[in-house]
Amino acid sequence: MTYCLAIRVAEGTVFASDTRTHAGVDYVTSYRKLHVFQPADDRLFVVQSAGSLATTQETLDRLRRDLDASDGRESLRTVQYLFEAASYVGRVCRQVQDDHAVALGKSGVSGETTLLLGGQVGSEAHGLFLLYPQGNYIQASDDTPYLQIGESKYGKPMLDRLVNPHLSLEDAARLALVSLDATVRSNVTVGAPFDFAIHRAGTTLLERQFRVHADGGDYAAMRGAWQEGLLKTFAALPRFSWEGEAAPPPC
Amino acid sequence: MTYCLAIRVAEGTVFASDTRTHAGVDYVTSYRKLHVFQPADDRLFVVQSAGSLATTQETLDRLRRDLDASDGRESLRTVQYLFEAASYVGRVCRQVQDDHAVALGKSGVSGETTLLLGGQVGSEAHGLFLLYPQGNYIQASDDTPYLQIGESKYGKPMLDRLVNPHLSLEDAARLALVSLDATVRSNVTVGAPFDFAIHRAGTTLLERQFRVHADGGDYAAMRGAWQEGLLKTFAALPRFSWEGEAAPPPC
Repeated sequence: MTYCLAIRVAEGTVFASDTRTHAGVDYVTSYRKLHVFQPADDRLFVVQSAGSLATTQETLDRLRRDLDASDGRESLRTVQYLFEAASYVGRVCRQVQDDHAVALGKSGVSGETTLLLGGQVGSEAHGLFLLYPQGNYIQASDDTPYLQIGESKYGKPMLDRLVNPHLSLEDAARLALVSLDATVRSNVTVGAPFDFAIHRAGTTLLERQFRVHADGGDYAAMRGAWQEGLLKTFAALPRFSWEGEAAPPPC
Repeated sequence: MTYCLAIRVAEGTVFASDTRTHAGVDYVTSYRKLHVFQPADDRLFVVQSAGSLATTQETLDRLRRDLDASDGRESLRTVQYLFEAASYVGRVCRQVQDDHAVALGKSGVSGETTLLLGGQVGSEAHGLFLLYPQGNYIQASDDTPYLQIGESKYGKPMLDRLVNPHLSLEDAARLALVSLDATVRSNVTVGAPFDFAIHRAGTTLLERQFRVHADGGDYAAMRGAWQEGLLKTFAALPRFSWEGEAAPPPC
């Protein structure tokens, strides 16, 4: 499985992905699921993927081929808006799935892939999209400043509690790490290291790109402080009103 | 959807269930999903259900009919061990599903129901079982002291962090409420009020049974303190090692 998320705040966007692929008893491998495209000075795209690894890789290859082509075809270099990039990438991804659908169907295998796409084109505001396997998309907003793909449920409660569009990029990165940590604790098929990319709004270059390792100091410190804080908070929760009362007659 | 969980600690077992059924735009109703059977002085059974409401209700009706019968048939009164109760209830539930499978299949509807069953028979240790729709079961243990059915992922991370078999029954009830709260915040199809039952090990009567209401004082106080504690813990998390450094040249 996979868990990728991105948080779009006023200051910019934080992208974070796990790296575990095809987790199973015998076959746990690690692949990068966060991909950066900077085809021109005025544009930046970050793509994250969940689903079929084959579909993802062929989609990325076709995006690169379109960039190499000199016949004026649509590509990440030609789009004028970020939504056009979302629409174009969604179409390429759906086409890859369509090309293999009959053969995969015979084997009962799904080639579906869901993508996150974020970044900035020119002076347009920075944006974040979720691209469904069918090629259509939804967009993050101030009301819903984060999007998730893959194994998203374990990491959602903390996002729902703590996210808001006024978080700093640093806090948004911390929150993404909290959300990833919740997921890896509850689901062995999602695993560190985690890839992060930070895009500051108004620019078309990544401000930072880094990898958080399972045994790295940053993650260990965060994980320890978070667990300790949760234990303390739990221990200090108010009692039920019936606690301290004598037990009622058994019912 | 539904979310039910039970936590089995050394002191006994806490059962907790939401009450939302068939949540949808037009049709949100509330049903009790926690059912208590005390067919004789030496035994107590608590049953929780997730899945088809029709299957659940017919299963419960058949369990009651078996208890009323005087022909010596197997029932919750005749079983000698808690695992026999799990096996018997699982069989009844599967039979109900089988009886409707053809008709439901034609409509593309699932009649599957998953159950939790806990309690105590005689002087045997208190126990907790999860009954699959197929009728087989797994059992909670000291290593895995909780079991969940229904929409279980949102509420799992806090259980994984905080549960242990040495919790008091009061703390186990608080933890169940934390887990339910995480779920209702992230999934609108799970909702308060929540039904709780507390079984103290070594007895065959419930020590307490109560309902936690969305606007009740206990839940409001817990919810507020939990949210505040999480916000404080998040704000105090260690910084990434790169924070405070000058940003590197953009990449």
